[in-house]
Amino acid sequence: MAKKKIQVKIKNKHLPRMFKKKGKPPGTIMYVGQREGMTSTLQVLEYSHEEVKEEVHPTLDHLSRKLEPGKNLWIDVIGISDEGFIEQLGKEFKLNSLILEDAVNTHQRPKIDEYEEYIFSVFKMLYLNADQQLVVEHLALILFQDRVLVLQELKEDVFNGVRERIRNKSGRIRSRGADYLFFALIDAVVDSYLEVVEHAFQKIELLEEEVYNNPKHDTAHSIQEIKKEVIRLHKWIFPVKELVHRLIETENPLVTKDTKLFLRDALDHCIEVNENLQIYREMSISLMEMYMSNMSNKMNEVMKVLTIMASIFIPLTFIAGIYGMNFNRMPELQWEYGYYAVLGLMLAILIIMLVYFKRKGWL
Amino acid sequence: MAKKKIQVKIKNKHLPRMFKKKGKPPGTIMYVGQREGMTSTLQVLEYSHEEVKEEVHPTLDHLSRKLEPGKNLWIDVIGISDEGFIEQLGKEFKLNSLILEDAVNTHQRPKIDEYEEYIFSVFKMLYLNADQQLVVEHLALILFQDRVLVLQELKEDVFNGVRERIRNKSGRIRSRGADYLFFALIDAVVDSYLEVVEHAFQKIELLEEEVYNNPKHDTAHSIQEIKKEVIRLHKWIFPVKELVHRLIETENPLVTKDTKLFLRDALDHCIEVNENLQIYREMSISLMEMYMSNMSNKMNEVMKVLTIMASIFIPLTFIAGIYGMNFNRMPELQWEYGYYAVLGLMLAILIIMLVYFKRKGWL
Amino acid sequence: MAKKKIQVKIKNKHLPRMFKKKGKPPGTIMYVGQREGMTSTLQVLEYSHEEVKEEVHPTLDHLSRKLEPGKNLWIDVIGISDEGFIEQLGKEFKLNSLILEDAVNTHQRPKIDEYEEYIFSVFKMLYLNADQQLVVEHLALILFQDRVLVLQELKEDVFNGVRERIRNKSGRIRSRGADYLFFALIDAVVDSYLEVVEHAFQKIELLEEEVYNNPKHDTAHSIQEIKKEVIRLHKWIFPVKELVHRLIETENPLVTKDTKLFLRDALDHCIEVNENLQIYREMSISLMEMYMSNMSNKMNEVMKVLTIMASIFIPLTFIAGIYGMNFNRMPELQWEYGYYAVLGLMLAILIIMLVYFKRKGWL
Amino acid sequence: MAKKKIQVKIKNKHLPRMFKKKGKPPGTIMYVGQREGMTSTLQVLEYSHEEVKEEVHPTLDHLSRKLEPGKNLWIDVIGISDEGFIEQLGKEFKLNSLILEDAVNTHQRPKIDEYEEYIFSVFKMLYLNADQQLVVEHLALILFQDRVLVLQELKEDVFNGVRERIRNKSGRIRSRGADYLFFALIDAVVDSYLEVVEHAFQKIELLEEEVYNNPKHDTAHSIQEIKKEVIRLHKWIFPVKELVHRLIETENPLVTKDTKLFLRDALDHCIEVNENLQIYREMSISLMEMYMSNMSNKMNEVMKVLTIMASIFIPLTFIAGIYGMNFNRMPELQWEYGYYAVLGLMLAILIIMLVYFKRKGWL
Amino acid sequence: MAKKKIQVKIKNKHLPRMFKKKGKPPGTIMYVGQREGMTSTLQVLEYSHEEVKEEVHPTLDHLSRKLEPGKNLWIDVIGISDEGFIEQLGKEFKLNSLILEDAVNTHQRPKIDEYEEYIFSVFKMLYLNADQQLVVEHLALILFQDRVLVLQELKEDVFNGVRERIRNKSGRIRSRGADYLFFALIDAVVDSYLEVVEHAFQKIELLEEEVYNNPKHDTAHSIQEIKKEVIRLHKWIFPVKELVHRLIETENPLVTKDTKLFLRDALDHCIEVNENLQIYREMSISLMEMYMSNMSNKMNEVMKVLTIMASIFIPLTFIAGIYGMNFNRMPELQWEYGYYAVLGLMLAILIIMLVYFKRKGWL
Repeated sequence: MAKKKIQVKIKNKHLPRMFKKKGKPPGTIMYVGQREGMTSTLQVLEYSHEEVKEEVHPTLDHLSRKLEPGKNLWIDVIGISDEGFIEQLGKEFKLNSLILEDAVNTHQRPKIDEYEEYIFSVFKMLYLNADQQLVVEHLALILFQDRVLVLQELKEDVFNGVRERIRNKSGRIRSRGADYLFFALIDAVVDSYLEVVEHAFQKIELLEEEVYNNPKHDTAHSIQEIKKEVIRLHKWIFPVKELVHRLIETENPLVTKDTKLFLRDALDHCIEVNENLQIYREMSISLMEMYMSNMSNKMNEVMKVLTIMASIFIPLTFIAGIYGMNFNRMPELQWEYGYYAVLGLMLAILIIMLVYFKRKGWL
Repeated sequence: MAKKKIQVKIKNKHLPRMFKKKGKPPGTIMYVGQREGMTSTLQVLEYSHEEVKEEVHPTLDHLSRKLEPGKNLWIDVIGISDEGFIEQLGKEFKLNSLILEDAVNTHQRPKIDEYEEYIFSVFKMLYLNADQQLVVEHLALILFQDRVLVLQELKEDVFNGVRERIRNKSGRIRSRGADYLFFALIDAVVDSYLEVVEHAFQKIELLEEEVYNNPKHDTAHSIQEIKKEVIRLHKWIFPVKELVHRLIETENPLVTKDTKLFLRDALDHCIEVNENLQIYREMSISLMEMYMSNMSNKMNEVMKVLTIMASIFIPLTFIAGIYGMNFNRMPELQWEYGYYAVLGLMLAILIIMLVYFKRKGWL
Repeated sequence: MAKKKIQVKIKNKHLPRMFKKKGKPPGTIMYVGQREGMTSTLQVLEYSHEEVKEEVHPTLDHLSRKLEPGKNLWIDVIGISDEGFIEQLGKEFKLNSLILEDAVNTHQRPKIDEYEEYIFSVFKMLYLNADQQLVVEHLALILFQDRVLVLQELKEDVFNGVRERIRNKSGRIRSRGADYLFFALIDAVVDSYLEVVEHAFQKIELLEEEVYNNPKHDTAHSIQEIKKEVIRLHKWIFPVKELVHRLIETENPLVTKDTKLFLRDALDHCIEVNENLQIYREMSISLMEMYMSNMSNKMNEVMKVLTIMASIFIPLTFIAGIYGMNFNRMPELQWEYGYYAVLGLMLAILIIMLVYFKRKGWL
Repeated sequence: MAKKKIQVKIKNKHLPRMFKKKGKPPGTIMYVGQREGMTSTLQVLEYSHEEVKEEVHPTLDHLSRKLEPGKNLWIDVIGISDEGFIEQLGKEFKLNSLILEDAVNTHQRPKIDEYEEYIFSVFKMLYLNADQQLVVEHLALILFQDRVLVLQELKEDVFNGVRERIRNKSGRIRSRGADYLFFALIDAVVDSYLEVVEHAFQKIELLEEEVYNNPKHDTAHSIQEIKKEVIRLHKWIFPVKELVHRLIETENPLVTKDTKLFLRDALDHCIEVNENLQIYREMSISLMEMYMSNMSNKMNEVMKVLTIMASIFIPLTFIAGIYGMNFNRMPELQWEYGYYAVLGLMLAILIIMLVYFKRKGWL
Repeated sequence: MAKKKIQVKIKNKHLPRMFKKKGKPPGTIMYVGQREGMTSTLQVLEYSHEEVKEEVHPTLDHLSRKLEPGKNLWIDVIGISDEGFIEQLGKEFKLNSLILEDAVNTHQRPKIDEYEEYIFSVFKMLYLNADQQLVVEHLALILFQDRVLVLQELKEDVFNGVRERIRNKSGRIRSRGADYLFFALIDAVVDSYLEVVEHAFQKIELLEEEVYNNPKHDTAHSIQEIKKEVIRLHKWIFPVKELVHRLIETENPLVTKDTKLFLRDALDHCIEVNENLQIYREMSISLMEMYMSNMSNKMNEVMKVLTIMASIFIPLTFIAGIYGMNFNRMPELQWEYGYYAVLGLMLAILIIMLVYFKRKGWL
């Protein structure tokens, strides 16, 4: 059996940065995503029940200063491709190098790591941009006693609602600790999953309509694309359920009992999203089945047209062929109404065939 | 590979209310279902072994009053889209805001939460309305020491049997506590699952008959619809099994040992429903297979008709064509019985072909 | 997308009795099977190592009398649709109303419930009747200290072997307690599963032969029927494994250690039956695949016949058509051997085509 | 829907002996396999580090005699259909009747039972005979303190390697206890699984080649056969993994810690065999897919030939038909080069069609 | 049913060495791979924070010498088919014979075994060679207190990065113990899995493009090949996750807490690789579906061409046939413009048919 070898040379220019990391010792801080060359900027929100203060471009040492009791700090690092800055940040907050590695490694799957001084977590932020395109943004959240450090790839995020609630004096979030902010951010991330998954669902419903009413050659391809999207969403979203569950179960004093009550709510949403994803997956598999069945129906229709045309006209042509023969003695040819008789015969055959196909339900 | 992008703009007017909730803090009481704008009304049944009293439109503070021993209260809130009223209710019964949120959030999956003062549970009530259409109604049940608070979306429900049993003096339910009422309501919900699932089964059986006897173009679509319905039923019904199990295992004093014995019965029904759903799911998958196999059989039949017609008449036409040629010297044309000989030859070929197809089993 | 609504009105006359039970309080004794209107009759076997006594139609109070040590009672209630009698029976043996409900509820799935005074279990008895039709009979077994109460729907059962062993003085069963009888009955039920499952297997093998040698239009339907039968058998048989396992693990003094040793044997059989069912299920799925592949092969054959006939005769007919044209100047027509030359050409084409198809492997 | 009833009468002559056992009490020693009527013969190997002694046809009481320390006995019973002999054997070794039942019951699935005096296990021995046919042989191994009792159906087995190692003075097995022999026999059985599974793999590879190069009508059938073989192998081999694991975990003093170290090795092989079986199963499923895809490809090819022939010659025949019409006034017929013009037109059409099909990639 | 027997004689020359091992006692050191006849060579790296020393071809006893504190030894044995050498090595390091057996048994699945003096592990090293072909190399790693013994089949490996880091004075690896080296080697192996799996992914993407744009006859075969490759990768890679997890959980003092922190990182990568493999598996299954759907589309296209050509020209030919009949009285033939009328009629039919097919969407 002559097997066909599929040779794939990984060309250097297409080489994902991931492979460049190969052979590097663990703990190497290296951004491997596609949003390179961005300078990291800082956004800081300092808030307590009484007041809110927003700072842009603060100095790093200012960020790790001791806070007055009741005050919380939300430090937002935007742009994580500047490895030097990240290293500096790590020193300031006394972060483990393995943690920094995960914080900027966009291939890192969702995880949560607990340390004595902080809880570290990595997620994927999923949202639709202005063009309704899915954006996948790497996100690291680090919860300290009285501050939350956020590292995100882009300026866009899903946290505007949380920001508003902090700016608004009456928001419950103002009078609670950093762990509540940490939860609120996770909650916002999980909420965005709901939206993204519903968006996928709407695409599936559109495709379902297309399959049913007007399947085209590339419909099958669209179905495969949506199937892959659902699989990818599952990969990013599924582990989050387990992580939130672990946050609820943790005995780490950084997470208060009150906040755990709210985390239970986020867990419910995670389960809901995962259940829906599972259903959408089955729906997209059914779509392909449906498409194949429609193709089969169409083929049936094509074959019926061919069969009807051929079955009617081939016998008639044969009859015409007979009386087109040039034998010297063919008595019918001399009959006065022979021609009309043959036309009548043909008509009779035509009617019989039509009735037959009608009965078969092919017409 | 030019991939086709499926662009889906979520238009504002089609925006489910669910998305409006995005960015709101947790604990926000917001009805997100489609039965908006209904005023909440109250129905109250106060009963003891001796007497039953029905109240409509009582005041809220009356509902949370202290009861004489042996008396139970069934408070039924119909219509949950009036968030103001729900909030008031929550205050009266000292309910957590997260609970109120779940009680009116129609996207909430079935859950059970135990607190010191009450047990809170959310279910989906599934039943067939007068038009035999499936109705999915969000339902929250809250068990207190001596009363059960029910929140339901519509006036229709599956609790009429329970109401009758309370009104009837001899009913066991009259002499038992609120936890028995709580169980009786859950039991009624689970019983309605049985009915709804059997209804789905009857649709599957009808479809099976249609597939077998008279598959039509949209039969495949109906099969996919029933498959989706079974998946959806599974989503609503499956978690209930676990919830009832947890009620049996609970050490909460609100649920007495006696009632747990009955809950075991409800658990049996849950398992039964889930097993049946699983079987119906496999049956609906088989249906699609069956449909495809029937389509294939039909195609075979179409192809056979075409092949028989073409295989018989094409050679005959060819023979007629030969004697329609205009060569000067074609001795057969001059033969006296040439024409009849050719007709005989054609008849012979026809018979041979028919015998051949008969043997093939195509006729 | 205009969806087709499948409307199913559950008509009253077809309403299974199960639905009539809806709204009834739990513990309502109600037979919901299809073998209604039978009077319950009693068969009693009283035996000890020394003697056996068979009674028919004893009075109920006689059944619950105290027995001499070493004596066991096997009480067989045949016909369970007479709810009044069942209620009486329940009172006599002090049985819980929930148990009586399960004993006559033919929709009850296999279960085992342990109480202080007795162990209650429900099974399905599966056997082939004289016409080799599968009979599904609801069966309840209740083990007391020195007697076993059996409730069965029909006079037919799978216990004749056990009866013979009791009547036979040398049988081990005579010198053992009621728990051994309980086990022997369960063992007989499990043995009958083996037979029924093997019967299904033989049907699968027959179908396999049919698919391979002579697939017909309704073969697909038979395959689906056998698939459904295997699924249904699985539903009835699968839970029994767990039940027997629980009997082995129980610490209830009603079941002696000796009998548990034998139960282990019955457990082995349960596992065996379930494994076989699993294999037969996969075989029935393969059958459908096989059938589709055969259909596909048949279609291929049909298409080949059509293609061969058309490919040979269409070009020949075309040639005949050419020389049937009426142009004034067609030199070939005047050639002395033109006709024979054309016939030769046609023969050559025929041979070339045949060789071509032979090489393709189509002939 | 007129359902087709598949009636299967189990005829007496085809009745497997298994059914004859129905109704018999548990513990009935009855051989139910197909190798009936064989006299049981005995082969005994007595060995210590110093010497080996082989006995054939020893008396039974000699087998259960007390051995000198350091001596081990391997007692091999060949032929297990002689129930009387087995019963005698059981008495001599004080074996439980349930154990004897399992030892000769060829339907018994692999199991291990620990008793105080001995460990009893049942396996399937799988090997290829001289004709490369798979032989399935029932095997029971019973480990005592200083002897191993083996019951096998046939003289052929997979233990010749072990026998050689015992006869060979330098073999480690000579200086170890009976438990090491017990392990060595299990190891030999597991090794034979490896061989049988690899043999199945080679059949799959041959079929794969057949599917790829030359799929025939019965290739689908062969694929189904191999799928069934893999399922059957799985049934026999899969439980062994668990059994070996239990031997490793046992606290029974009959199995020494040293031997457990070796058992771990056998466990590795079991896992390996099961993993491979799983892979071969998936490969055989892929084979069917591949076969269907090839059938589909072939159909495509057939259709292309038909379409090309018909699409080229039907239009040409039509043109010839036009000039075969007998109208009085058809000016082309009078043209001097009319005939040649038409031939040229036909040639042009032919070329256009060929170019079209070439572009479509159908030629 | 005449079943086709697939006879497979395992010929001696093709007999894998694996079968030669059959019947050998456990603990037999035997290389069963395909890289036979290689002499084993040694490469040794001795390093401490201060210095690095590389030795080639040292004597064996030198390798097991006592080291100064702070020094570590990396002993690399290249070529494992020389059983004599391996046995010597085992004696020098006091290794169990079962361990040596696994170290050279290329059929051994990934495993980890802990002993008091050392931790033994077997992996598969997977990498792409210069020709981008997948190389599967058996690898055994043995961790002692202050040295790591590596056994590999070929000179090529994935450890060059680790070697560089040791040679480089500033590398963290220099100042850490042998357990860190052990981890670094495992990490390098796991990293190579990432690369190999991504390579498989690229092949899948290429095939996806081929399926979508230009499916060929052997595309189906390539898809099956990639499916098998993914299954094989899964077999080699999947168990590693569990092994790394066990290393993290071990209480063996050979693995320090610091190193476990890094192992957690390697575990993350293992999970990532396995998740990706799972996704690629589903993608390759979808590929086959896609291919079948494209085949079906192509068939549809072929059928449409045939149907259009036949449906247009068969009726036209019939009309021509009518006027080719030789009846004496056919008035149309005498009409002056009969010919043109017929041509007009034909044109009208042609147009009607084209419009019909256009509307059907077949043109």
